[in-house]
This record gives sequence, structure tokens and C-alpha cells, in this order.
Amino acid sequence: MINVGIVGAAGYSGLELIKLLLNHPEVEITKLFGSSTVGNFIEEVHPALRGMISLEIQQFNVSELKEVDVLFVALPSGQSMNIIAEAYKAGVKIIDLGGDFRLNDISEYKKYYKHDHLAAELLTKAAYGLSEWNEEEIQNSMLISNPGCYPTSVQLPLIPLLKNGLLENELISIVSYSGTSGAGKSVTANMIFSEVNESVRAYKVGNHQHIPEIKQYLEKFGGTKPDFSFVPHLLPITRGIYTTIHAKVKAGVTEAEINDAYKSSYAEKPFVRLIAPAIPEIKDVVNTNFCDIGFKLLDNDTLVIFSTIDNLVKGAAGQAIQNMNIMFGFQQTEGILKCNGNPSRQSRDKKKSLQIK
Amino acid sequence: MINVGIVGAAGYSGLELIKLLLNHPEVEITKLFGSSTVGNFIEEVHPALRGMISLEIQQFNVSELKEVDVLFVALPSGQSMNIIAEAYKAGVKIIDLGGDFRLNDISEYKKYYKHDHLAAELLTKAAYGLSEWNEEEIQNSMLISNPGCYPTSVQLPLIPLLKNGLLENELISIVSYSGTSGAGKSVTANMIFSEVNESVRAYKVGNHQHIPEIKQYLEKFGGTKPDFSFVPHLLPITRGIYTTIHAKVKAGVTEAEINDAYKSSYAEKPFVRLIAPAIPEIKDVVNTNFCDIGFKLLDNDTLVIFSTIDNLVKGAAGQAIQNMNIMFGFQQTEGILKCNGNPSRQSRDKKKSLQIK
Amino acid sequence: MINVGIVGAAGYSGLELIKLLLNHPEVEITKLFGSSTVGNFIEEVHPALRGMISLEIQQFNVSELKEVDVLFVALPSGQSMNIIAEAYKAGVKIIDLGGDFRLNDISEYKKYYKHDHLAAELLTKAAYGLSEWNEEEIQNSMLISNPGCYPTSVQLPLIPLLKNGLLENELISIVSYSGTSGAGKSVTANMIFSEVNESVRAYKVGNHQHIPEIKQYLEKFGGTKPDFSFVPHLLPITRGIYTTIHAKVKAGVTEAEINDAYKSSYAEKPFVRLIAPAIPEIKDVVNTNFCDIGFKLLDNDTLVIFSTIDNLVKGAAGQAIQNMNIMFGFQQTEGILKCNGNPSRQSRDKKKSLQIK
Amino acid sequence: MINVGIVGAAGYSGLELIKLLLNHPEVEITKLFGSSTVGNFIEEVHPALRGMISLEIQQFNVSELKEVDVLFVALPSGQSMNIIAEAYKAGVKIIDLGGDFRLNDISEYKKYYKHDHLAAELLTKAAYGLSEWNEEEIQNSMLISNPGCYPTSVQLPLIPLLKNGLLENELISIVSYSGTSGAGKSVTANMIFSEVNESVRAYKVGNHQHIPEIKQYLEKFGGTKPDFSFVPHLLPITRGIYTTIHAKVKAGVTEAEINDAYKSSYAEKPFVRLIAPAIPEIKDVVNTNFCDIGFKLLDNDTLVIFSTIDNLVKGAAGQAIQNMNIMFGFQQTEGILKCNGNPSRQSRDKKKSLQIK
Repeated sequence: MINVGIVGAAGYSGLELIKLLLNHPEVEITKLFGSSTVGNFIEEVHPALRGMISLEIQQFNVSELKEVDVLFVALPSGQSMNIIAEAYKAGVKIIDLGGDFRLNDISEYKKYYKHDHLAAELLTKAAYGLSEWNEEEIQNSMLISNPGCYPTSVQLPLIPLLKNGLLENELISIVSYSGTSGAGKSVTANMIFSEVNESVRAYKVGNHQHIPEIKQYLEKFGGTKPDFSFVPHLLPITRGIYTTIHAKVKAGVTEAEINDAYKSSYAEKPFVRLIAPAIPEIKDVVNTNFCDIGFKLLDNDTLVIFSTIDNLVKGAAGQAIQNMNIMFGFQQTEGILKCNGNPSRQSRDKKKSLQIK
Repeated sequence: MINVGIVGAAGYSGLELIKLLLNHPEVEITKLFGSSTVGNFIEEVHPALRGMISLEIQQFNVSELKEVDVLFVALPSGQSMNIIAEAYKAGVKIIDLGGDFRLNDISEYKKYYKHDHLAAELLTKAAYGLSEWNEEEIQNSMLISNPGCYPTSVQLPLIPLLKNGLLENELISIVSYSGTSGAGKSVTANMIFSEVNESVRAYKVGNHQHIPEIKQYLEKFGGTKPDFSFVPHLLPITRGIYTTIHAKVKAGVTEAEINDAYKSSYAEKPFVRLIAPAIPEIKDVVNTNFCDIGFKLLDNDTLVIFSTIDNLVKGAAGQAIQNMNIMFGFQQTEGILKCNGNPSRQSRDKKKSLQIK
Repeated sequence: MINVGIVGAAGYSGLELIKLLLNHPEVEITKLFGSSTVGNFIEEVHPALRGMISLEIQQFNVSELKEVDVLFVALPSGQSMNIIAEAYKAGVKIIDLGGDFRLNDISEYKKYYKHDHLAAELLTKAAYGLSEWNEEEIQNSMLISNPGCYPTSVQLPLIPLLKNGLLENELISIVSYSGTSGAGKSVTANMIFSEVNESVRAYKVGNHQHIPEIKQYLEKFGGTKPDFSFVPHLLPITRGIYTTIHAKVKAGVTEAEINDAYKSSYAEKPFVRLIAPAIPEIKDVVNTNFCDIGFKLLDNDTLVIFSTIDNLVKGAAGQAIQNMNIMFGFQQTEGILKCNGNPSRQSRDKKKSLQIK
Repeated sequence: MINVGIVGAAGYSGLELIKLLLNHPEVEITKLFGSSTVGNFIEEVHPALRGMISLEIQQFNVSELKEVDVLFVALPSGQSMNIIAEAYKAGVKIIDLGGDFRLNDISEYKKYYKHDHLAAELLTKAAYGLSEWNEEEIQNSMLISNPGCYPTSVQLPLIPLLKNGLLENELISIVSYSGTSGAGKSVTANMIFSEVNESVRAYKVGNHQHIPEIKQYLEKFGGTKPDFSFVPHLLPITRGIYTTIHAKVKAGVTEAEINDAYKSSYAEKPFVRLIAPAIPEIKDVVNTNFCDIGFKLLDNDTLVIFSTIDNLVKGAAGQAIQNMNIMFGFQQTEGILKCNGNPSRQSRDKKKSLQIK
């Protein structure tokens, strides 16, 4: 049993963390920190939690972390650097759901996040929390930088193809659509219901802060620097990301090779489901920590790849808990995936491989 | 051809007024007034209007009204009283879409609108713009107080029953559901998409500002002071109001009598469609100036009445133009309803009466 | 550890049962029965389940139930009577999520369900599964008739008031709005997205099959036969029911008395949250087994009561599992509610009572 | 004044045609044809039309066309070929909203539409109704083949770039998202609200029937045969298409050149709005005949282009009426676009050009 603290409990990622952690058999939530909500009980801020948890939100103070085993930080970028620096110094394990410790290059950080970095000395300490690709670093680090929602939906389908050298050196175009919870609880004129409902819009074209993150980690895990474009769009739904990627495969690359690349990467990974030739649908991953991947190889060596995640789960709180499980030596699935009769991974993979061919 | 000015052109009712007036053969929009948007062109504020109108938004000044025949005022309650007082003094016809000139009783106004009235002397000058019931006053007035959206959806189905003495003197319970555009463009935490989507909530239970308006005009046009309760709810859709009313009819009252009450009230009214025994659906009135009414007489003398309107059209801009048409002697339907081959009303009513029995 | 079988696994209630049971520490799902989906694996029918369960759907045969401890039946009304009769004879515990064993009066059944009853002899054997009010019968019965979704949302808020004699003998008007999953997977012209989206409609006015169910159990548990009207509406959301009830209280009844009636009924019940003076919102109960209740006492002795449930959870699969827990002597909350640090009920109630006054 | 007939009046395109034509000053709808709805009045099939039109739906018979000046055919592909052949022979002008007369190559037709062509002799007679690019052919033809919704949203932004030779000869990836009305009123399991809501899915990847249509007309009007991929997705909204296109521009191509290509193509076209550097939003074109185009030139010569249309208007009924206007010598905007005070095109374009640079 470990004690957990959460900074930013009043936001959507905070709420999702609490809901998921309540279901985790090895966890008790003992500290909640906020700013404008200090003094309120968490179930007043999130009435959905009434009857499940009753805990007062406090002002963050590092002295409050004495009995905290791990601190989740779920704040907008730029607001948590001091808190994380203090907690890190105090020797507390930290999982940061924000974007402040994802980029190695401070100039890139400034360019995309539009402010200075206040804890640059920690950048080399942070392990990128893409659970399926960075398990060892995550295990050995005190500070996890949890991936962005879009990068998770982009990197998981692309890394195996890059790593196996299947893609031609041409433009990879990435079109992502996200539900509104990805924007958090920000109260702006263009996020009110009447403006979002029954509409769609692209945004931050060419300057979204997830672009350098995608770039850095495609290189780190895929071993190459592809020419890519990433364009996010806003969907009139609350949860879920749909990513559609176009790429050219090298001449002669077959569907079987693509399948193999995915299977060798993910057959042992409980949260990535290769579902080709089926096409992913957002509704099948909502409220889960799964990333579903499908693809179709078209004429002319054109490959279309689809992935879906729940931005608040695999794209935020769920992957954060997956990383906590890795850090503390729990089963990766603990608290975030139950299987019927706890079947061994073998049986699931046997079934999965049947689906593919 | 008349010249029209609009105050509050940047809001949803303002946008709706412009869209509808562009389709009106007797109107040119010549003046637009705003506050925070002054200096912008209207098509910058509402990109939907690009290619249809290009007009700069000005600061309101009564001297700008010299060639304006009618001024629509579409501001939140409390913000327009000075403007209306000035324009009235200048002799301009005014149609106010806000709530400031609907209540006779200033103490009721203060209680429900939470601020003082700054132009109380005009209250007796204003004609309530419930087009179907107040045509003569509307024709003879310089200042029209356009009804609230909920009151329109409540009064149109209730007045004929009250007027004809069909209802028992017991509680009339009125449950209304409205789309989010009814709240205007207000940017508040509980109106962002993630909070409204996939949910419903009642609000302002027992203290909504439309309660005294309903009360006053049920008495004025229905001739009685019923015991009623009105409870509004927020729907995760953009446009439309659904009102469900329970009332007890006097012993022995038949469906035919109810039908007759509606037909005698509305057979000559182009915008009220009695569709019983069919049940109204919001989608059939969206983007129209219609109010659809259905009802069912249940056992035990219980009557359930349903009405639907588009809150931005019949509940705001559409009825405002209907009132403009009445004021200027145009056909009531001019610009807001086209009929195939312009059939005479007789043929439509013949058809309609066939539907009912 | 008990073995569970499900009939009707391909429907929405079936899917919800599986999702919830996967999270139940005392349960293994061992048998799935279907009709048109026989021969498919459940994760092919519900791709959301990939990676969590892999089980072939079989044709129902009572011989397959030998090692099944409890059989959930989630079929449309009228399709399960033979199956239930056979399973009952074989001595298997049964929880029926359909409507076939809810009404005592066969003539009422025929009138509202439009077909004959084929297993009338079992009607007296079935215990109505309104968990909060019928625990003892549920514990001692082999056949549970799980309540309808609307009746659950109506009875939980009304029974305490009736039982405590707080309501006047006048019309109780009940207006309910439900998401589309309440209609199951039925593929009809008026349920396609384009017809439901951005709209609302009332339906089955005066003849919904839940009317006699509400009537029978308000009398059984509330001890009186109120004059009521129930009108259901369709909402453009997937999950959730919002019920708004108007009733007249007896002269002099106070808010405190209403509070007391609810607290004496539900203080010890983990799934009913009295949240007055707050107003329920559907989003706070979605994906939970909670029923939230709020109310406001208006002038003139008019009481407005609000309740919310997730129609697929407390209105179907969740309450079914709650009943299973009661039947097998598990904690009522097992598998369907986790509390932080497993706080005792006392602390929750203390907190809850603070909220109320 | 011309007399109009409509085949397929019961569908969504039929409804849209009627709504738009009711607003057209030169048109009377005199004949409606259907199949399963024959004998009903159109306002019974589409209750939204009550009070605007009352006309009985007839079985199609060419003898009924004597006084019909133009026949709109809005049937699913494959169902209208006989009707169109008969009407054509009878000398009636025809506008076909279906896909049967869009492809020159019968083998492509069979491959993508999955059935034989029954009126191949008419293929050479049909003019493709992409109004902005084929005005002369449309004017001189008796049979217009109205473009598909997706092709309209793809061709309008791409043709000017191809025609001006601005694009590199690499993959053009086209990702489109459409509202559900694009699927018509088809009642299938995967189109019910609960399956579509809060989700997204790609479909017909690599085999959508609009692929050969896009190919044929990009070549015809753009003068080149680009390597492209088109992937459609389903959106949980009723109306609207969002198309996002990635392409490589030739080295050195500037934003100004792209602007010029669009302006030289569309400055005189009232229904194409170049809104760059703004990004299109679906809500700005819903219920209009506009196509909005935006773009952004990124690093590395990558161009992202965005377009939006209302699939039922510019993607179907609206463009059909635009084509009717061209055929009969009316103003192209007649009945489908009103401008304030009927400003000359010059003033609008002047304004528009200001927006761009």
C-alpha cells in the first residue's frame, strides 16, 4: 500500500487520476493540493466523487509530503516547475502530467511553450513516460515526464515502423482529432458549448507544443528523424483522440511486414491492441488505457495508419498510473485493467494473432 | 425598403437577426452597434457572415439613428436601458429582445433581475411582443418588448386553455429544456463543452427571471392567475426549447374541446402549428419561426401539453422580425416564412384541420 | 469466487454487465449466450472488450448451466421467459434485467407489453430488485426481477416521501429524459444519429410499459396509490436519465422534514446520494451505480424533486450486480464502488449530513 | 417562374432541396415522386415542412413531367438510372444528385459502386456540376451530374493549385470528416445514435466511391493526375465536412503564389470564400452554400489546406440549385444567397482581398 499525493486535483486529469486510483488495490490517496480550490473538499469541486472520497484540498507545501510515496502533478505547463523542483529535492517520486520536462532543448521549450524554463537542471533527470518504450528508464527514475496525449497517439503507431525501417523518406502527415477535455477546464470564448458543438476546427497549425515532443521521441525510440507534419483538430466530443497518419512505405514492403513490426513491438504489451484489418473507433477505447492501432496498405505504397486513445487515460492519468506501477514494481495493469479470470498474456496474444491474419 | 440598426450585433441573437434580415426583401441593415467589438467589421466577429454583409460595428450614438427606421436591441438585461431611453426620445421605433421592459412591477424586476430599473417611465409605453396575442398593441407602439424564449414556449400553448376556461384550478407544472444558445455567449466555467456535453441539469429552480413574465402574461392574455411552477433545464444541444406541461382539465373536458381552443386561437396564425396527436420534436422547428404544439389527454383528467420552438428564432430574433412586420404593415411572414407557390392560408388550414381530427 | 453466465451478451446491458463484472473480485464470467451472434467471440461483437475477455457466445442450453452460480438475463421483454423458466427449474439463481417478471397483474402485462406471458407461474417467485427497498426478499429469492431504468429513477426519490406521508393527494407529474442507450441496440429509423442529434422528443405518452411498474411498487414500498403521470423523453446523449418530479406537499411540511425522510431512508445506503440543496447533473452519475437526489420546496407547497442515474448502471447492469452481491452475501458495493482507503460508512454519512444542513 | 419536380423527396437531400427551393423566387415545386412513401403528403414524411408546403408524393411516371421544367433526382446510387433515362428522352432538364453519371469509365463505376450501369449511353451527355469549374458545360447540358459531397470539398481547394502547377509530384493526402447526414437516411446498426455519438471512425479506406470521382475531375480541371489518397471519417454531428489536405509545394513556392492561385480562380465566385490565414470551422458554413478554404505553408515546403462545406447544401442540394440557376440563366446566387443591400461583387471582393494580405 502506497500513499499518493496529487497536485492539480481540481482539473480533468486530476479527477481522472482520482477515479482510477480509487480502483487501485495498492494505493491510498492521502494528499490533494490545489490553488484556487484550497480549503474545499475534493468532492465539492468534483461532485461526481461524493461518496467515494472526502479529502480537503491543501496549499502545496513540501513538508506535507513526508508520508507521500509518489506525487502526481497535473498542472498546466509552466505552473509546476517550482513544486516539482522542491519535491524532487525532498526525495519524493514524481510523475508530471504536464509538458515541462519532456523537451531536452530549452530553446525549443521557449519557442513552443512561450515562457522560460525554471528548473532546467532537472531536464536530464526526467524519464519520458512512454511506458511501452521506456520501461527501464521509468523504473530507475525519480521523475517521470508523462507524454502528451497527441504524442502518445502518434508515437505508438509510428515507432515500430521507423524502428524497422519500413518507411520511405517522404512526408509523414499526421492528422489528429481530439475531444474537448484535452483543453482542460480552460474557460475561453471558443470552448463554450455553442461554439464547439456541431463543428470542427483545426488549431495551432504548425506551432502546437506537441510537435517538438513528437520529433524528439520519434528520433529517440524510432532511431530516425522523419519529415512529418502534425495538425490537431477539435472534435465536439468530450474524450478521445483519433489519429490518421499517411506515410509511404519502401518499395516492396508488405502488410505482413507491417504486422510483424507491430507484433514484435507490442505482443507483450497489454495496453496496445493491434486490430488491423479492423479500423479503430474512439468509443472502443474511451475510459480505458488502451491504444488501438489499425492500418491499411493502399496502392502506390501508401500506408494509412489509425490510432485511438482516451486522451484522459492513456493520454494522461492512465499512462501516469501505468508508470507508477512500473516505478513501484506492481503489475503494469494493476488498477487500470482487469482481465476475465486473469488469463495469462499468452492466451490473449494467441487470440490476437488469430485476428490479424 | 426600411433601414435597420442593431445594438448587440456580436451576440447570438444579433447574429440570428442579421441572418434573417438578410433574407427580408424590405430591409437593409445599415447600422450595427457594439461595445467591445467596436471598430471590427461584423464579418470578422461572425465569420459565418463573410460574403453576405460587410459593415463596421460602431459605438452607439443617437445621432447615428437619423436614417434608421427601426432599432433592434439585443443586449443582456440591464445593459440597454439608457440606449433605449435615448432612442425612444429620438422617435425611433425599437424592438428590445432583452428583458428590461417586460414586467410591469418594478419590485418584481429588482427581485428577479437583481438590479435597479433605469427607465421605469418607459414601462407603460412598451408593448409585449407576443405576436399572436398582442397584434394591435404592437401595431400602435414605438417600443416592443420581445418575449423571453421560455415564456414564448409556455404562453402559446397555455393561453388558449386558460382563456377558454378548460383547466382546473390546480398546479400547472411546466418543465422546459433549452439548448445552450439560450445562455448567449456568456463564457462561464459551467458552459464549456466538457461540462455541458452528455449531461443535463436543472437551474435557477424557483427563481428564474422568466417566472414573473409568464405569470404576468398568462394573466393578461389568459384572463386568470394560475398556480404554476416553471423549471428550466440545460440541454446539450445548441438550439431549441422543449416544454412539457402537466395540468388538470375540468371534469368532462374532451380532446375535441382542447382542439377547438387551439384552432380558434391559431387557425389564422401562420407560425403556430397544432400537430396533435403527433408529438413535437425540436428538430422540426430548428431554424424556423414556428411553435409546434401537441398534447395528450390522459386518464384522470390529466392533460400533458408539449411545445417546441427555436429559442433564437421564435424565442428571439424571428419573433422580433415578426413584430417588425406587424409594426410596418408588412405581411407577418415576410422574410421569415416562404410557402410553396404562396398558397392562400385557407388551403393550409384546410389541410391542417384534416390532420387534427 | 462464483461463476457467472450472461444471456444477451451482445446488447448494451450485456456489455455493461461484462465490463462491470470484470472488475468484480469474486466473479469469473464463464458462459455467454446469444442468438444471432452464436459462434462469435464476445470481443468480436464488442471490440471494446478485446484484451480483457475472450469467450465464445453459445446457444442457450440449460445443460450448460451446471457450473454457473448465477445467470444474468439481458434480453428484450418477451424473449426470455422460456429460458428463465428452464433455468429456474434447474435451480440456478437468476437476475432478469428485462421487464417480464415485474408486474403482478397479467392483464396489465398484456396491455403494456403487447404479448402474452408464457411463465406466469414464476411471477410470485420473483423478487423485485430495487436493492434499497427489497433487500430481504432479494436475499431469499432465486429469481430477481431487476427494475426498469425509469422506475429506478422515479421510485428512489418518491418512496421516502410517500412512506412518510409528506405528499398531498394531488397529481404527481413525472417528467423523465433518457439517453439513447435506454432503447438498446434497436435499429429503427427514428434512432439513427441524424434523427436524434440536436433534438428531443417525448414518446409513449400515457402508455409506456414502465407506468404500471411505477404504480405497483410505489404502492408496495410507499404504502399508497398516488395519482401520477409519467412522461418519458429521448435525449441526444448516450447514457443517463434525468427525472424531474412535481408534487404538492401537505400544508406545513418543511424542507427539514423532507431531508429527514431521505436521510432515514438512505443514510446507510451507499448508492443513493442526497445532494440537496445542490441540483443533480447527469455527468456526475455516468458510469456509476449512484442515484443522486436533489429537491427544492417552492412557494405554495410545491415540491420539485430531481434524480439522476446512469440508465445502464443503476438502471440496469449495476443494480443487477448490486442484487447479486446481496444474493451471495458479498458487500453491496463489491465490484461497483471503491472508496478511498475503504472509509467506514460512518465517515461518509457524517460528511453527507454536513452537506445537507 | 419554373416548375420543379423532385424524385426522392423523402430523403435528406430531398428535404434540403425543398427547404431551399421554397426560398427561391423563381420556382414552384409542383411534383414530388417517391417509392415507399407514395400516397403520403410530403409534410407527413417531413413534419418540419408543415405549414410551408402540402403536396402528395406520387409514383414516378414520365407522363407527369409535362409541365415540369427541371427534375431533381435525389436517390441512392443505382436506383435512378431508368428514371433519368426516361426523363431525358422526354426532354426534361435533369439534375442528378446521385453518383451514377459522374464517372466516364464504366469499369470504375462497377468496381466502386458494385453494380452494373443501366444507362451508359447517357454518360457522355452528362455535365459534371462542379459549378465553379464547369459553368459552360452546365449551361449547355440537359443532364447535370451533381458532384459528390466529399469531391466538392476536395476539388475546390485542390484544382487551383494543380492548375497553377504549384504542387510537387508527391503524395497528396486527403483526410475528410463528415457528419452523419452524408449517409442519408440509411437505417443500419452502425448509424444508430448510441454507436455514432462520442466516437469517430474511418471507413471505406481505399475503396470509397468518391475516389475515382476525385481522380477524374482533378485531372479534368486541374490538368494533371496527382498521386493522392482519400480517407473519409464519420463525425458525431449531423451536417458538415471538414477536409484537411497535405501536399508538398514545389521548392520556392510562396504563400502569395498560393493566394494568387485561389484569388484568380475564385474572386468572382460568390460561394467560395478564401479565408486564409484564418482556419475554417464547420459551423460557419452549416446551412449555407459556401465552401471555405484556408491554408498554411509550413517548413519544408509542406502545405496544409483546409476546406469546409455543408454536405447537404454545397455538397448536394445547394450546388444542385446553383446549377439550376446556371441552366436557366438566373443569378447563380438566386434563392441560395442574399447579400445585404445587394452589394455589388466588387465591394465584396475588395473587402475579401483585404482580409487575405
